Amino acid sequence: MEQYEFDQAIALDRVDGGWSAVVPDGWDINGNANGGFVMALGASALRAASGRAHPLTVTAHYLAPVTTGSVLCTAEVVKQGKRFTTMTGSIRRGDRECIRLLGAFGDLDPEAEQTFIDGGPPDLPPIDGCVRRTPEGGTALVGLANRLNMWIHPDDAEALDDRPSGSGLTRGWFEFRDGRPMDTLALLLAADSFPPAVFNIPEVIRGWVPTVEYTVHVRGIPAPGPLRCIFQTRFVSGGVLHEDGEVWDSAGRLVAISRQYGLLAQS
Amino acid sequence: MEQYEFDQAIALDRVDGGWSAVVPDGWDINGNANGGFVMALGASALRAASGRAHPLTVTAHYLAPVTTGSVLCTAEVVKQGKRFTTMTGSIRRGDRECIRLLGAFGDLDPEAEQTFIDGGPPDLPPIDGCVRRTPEGGTALVGLANRLNMWIHPDDAEALDDRPSGSGLTRGWFEFRDGRPMDTLALLLAADSFPPAVFNIPEVIRGWVPTVEYTVHVRGIPAPGPLRCIFQTRFVSGGVLHEDGEVWDSAGRLVAISRQYGLLAQS
Repeated sequence: MEQYEFDQAIALDRVDGGWSAVVPDGWDINGNANGGFVMALGASALRAASGRAHPLTVTAHYLAPVTTGSVLCTAEVVKQGKRFTTMTGSIRRGDRECIRLLGAFGDLDPEAEQTFIDGGPPDLPPIDGCVRRTPEGGTALVGLANRLNMWIHPDDAEALDDRPSGSGLTRGWFEFRDGRPMDTLALLLAADSFPPAVFNIPEVIRGWVPTVEYTVHVRGIPAPGPLRCIFQTRFVSGGVLHEDGEVWDSAGRLVAISRQYGLLAQS
Repeated sequence: MEQYEFDQAIALDRVDGGWSAVVPDGWDINGNANGGFVMALGASALRAASGRAHPLTVTAHYLAPVTTGSVLCTAEVVKQGKRFTTMTGSIRRGDRECIRLLGAFGDLDPEAEQTFIDGGPPDLPPIDGCVRRTPEGGTALVGLANRLNMWIHPDDAEALDDRPSGSGLTRGWFEFRDGRPMDTLALLLAADSFPPAVFNIPEVIRGWVPTVEYTVHVRGIPAPGPLRCIFQTRFVSGGVLHEDGEVWDSAGRLVAISRQYGLLAQS
């Protein structure tokens, strides 16, 4: 049995046609497993089948919600290259495909040179000066907030009480509640765990934001300690939004960037 | 026969197992078809098979170069939904897969509300105050520059002569040489046609930047007239870069955002 909740939750068993997993309760928002969690689970199977150490760039299209219980993860090599292995796969529940994935897997050098970094980690108050995300509050029941400690910048935290800042930003600290160390699979989760940045835009309805597509570029192996995250939505039009994220580790290094294509909540 | 060069170049013939196309000369950089062109060709087949009008979010993984000559485009429905049809497919040359695609296709409302737009089109001098991209010059022979008119912001244009600005930016105007109207397929091309923004970062070698993954979100149907484009690279580390793009139409509306995961040129 794995030591940590996240590792238990994404544990895979080799079966005919793929890997089986059992999605436990508590990684959800209103009963549906969080999109970052679902990507991490699917990417875990792709990574296993690739024989590579890390997800490097992974794209997910969300087709149906993943609820608790048994799922089948599939994984197929698209191309085995020298530097990357390109993989595709899915998570299925019975006859229904819930997510389709496409990604490149490979190695990451922990000592990789930071050639050019325009910017830095978001300016956050210390954890005890931020607002802890709770399962209740806002428009949803966030089971995920029992598994993860998310500490939100006080300037961004009132969106859940329907007082948007106007900035289109969500910034905060991220760590596992049970102290699980950060790794590259955790980055896929972290970049889709915070309240949607669009909640800090006054013109929109604050409700469920269905993700159509979510892509994460993993740029480094995170150092131990909490992550500093910033998410921004700049363009909302035609009922569609994007959210761009940056994830920085405790050593101040950029470890992931993310982007998603989502739908605005409907009244 | 199609009237315009781009439509001729991405014309498809239904065959067993997919669509055949003939990639003509002149959409290349150093003999390899441009990544944006290749995405547009593949997305054209996905779009045809989806029965939908527009690409909405498309991701491509580049596996092998596409050179001139016959290719086979494949397309498969992942999920036919109410609002979207999720598609996957590939471009193959003989036994070799050159690109794998995953995307969502659907409708776009030309009158879609611009709910929240933080920013605006890049501030560009008029076309006659910009620097026209030519096939020769810089580190590559850019056949593409015979098909497209790309007019680069003078502050960003000297990168090709090995004088990077330091900004990590490439900004410019985009239009078809033969006056082909803009549409959503053209946006997939436009967002990967300019010289890499990383060429305006002093620390890097200016040479071929292989794209591993490229994703475009199409956010609107472009109005007639040249596009205004801005591309930025902020993070270069471990031999990897991203490039983020925005494409704005002549009416000043955001019509696409793009991101790619690329590799730094090697010395």
